[in-house]
Amino acid sequence: MDLALNEAREAGTRGEVPVGAVLVLDGAVIAAAGNRTRERNDPTAHAEMLAIRDACVRLGQERLAGADLYVTLEPCAMCAAAISFARVRRLYYGAADPKGGGVAHGPRFYAQATCHHAPEVYSGIAETASADLLRGFFAARRT
Amino acid sequence: MDLALNEAREAGTRGEVPVGAVLVLDGAVIAAAGNRTRERNDPTAHAEMLAIRDACVRLGQERLAGADLYVTLEPCAMCAAAISFARVRRLYYGAADPKGGGVAHGPRFYAQATCHHAPEVYSGIAETASADLLRGFFAARRT
Repeated sequence: MDLALNEAREAGTRGEVPVGAVLVLDGAVIAAAGNRTRERNDPTAHAEMLAIRDACVRLGQERLAGADLYVTLEPCAMCAAAISFARVRRLYYGAADPKGGGVAHGPRFYAQATCHHAPEVYSGIAETASADLLRGFFAARRT
Repeated sequence: MDLALNEAREAGTRGEVPVGAVLVLDGAVIAAAGNRTRERNDPTAHAEMLAIRDACVRLGQERLAGADLYVTLEPCAMCAAAISFARVRRLYYGAADPKGGGVAHGPRFYAQATCHHAPEVYSGIAETASADLLRGFFAARRT
């Protein structure tokens, strides 16, 4: 999660909402990414999406069975679904996102009967550090 | 929707699940894509995602206000969320997807309080042609 926090910090210095994600398989980091929606003019370029796409391309496979994802913020529904499609084994996330989250809030993607693979979910990992980054970013933007 | 059906057909000939999507802005097609998850080893490469990403990059903006999306199958939650993030104005889709859809089924993304922009949704457009393509594809795979 420290690596994910670094990715989030770097995203913040690029003017992006500071969220970072890291994928680990068999004890090795296979992808790490921060949010790049502004830089790329791409509303789908959330940290989790970029990490999943990078890892899949790198491994030459559509699925990441056995991989664990660390992300600093509760994934939105888009990312929650992508995590499911990629067959990620465990999801560890930091801050909860009552306004945009899709795991413990709103669509609660993994709780739906239409969800064909749900990762094990562990929330509140480095929650304070993750949330502080986001709070600092939005406070700075308001001033 | 004819263009979207063509994209779906072409996806099928590539061995992909035959789904196609077209984005229209001010009467002009700004992006058209078929499913490419297998070809790209990318579980996020659904037709809608590729069309949205292409259009945003082409227009140099993260949002597609005023754009309308035509897609042959009910979008999943991942795509439904991306459509919302991109501020697509109207969503026209063909076949319903009770097993994986995220608009009228399962997470019903646009019905959630956490959804900040919902397009106008029109379903059942060229439904038979869209569904026939999918049925034919899966029937051929089973034999």
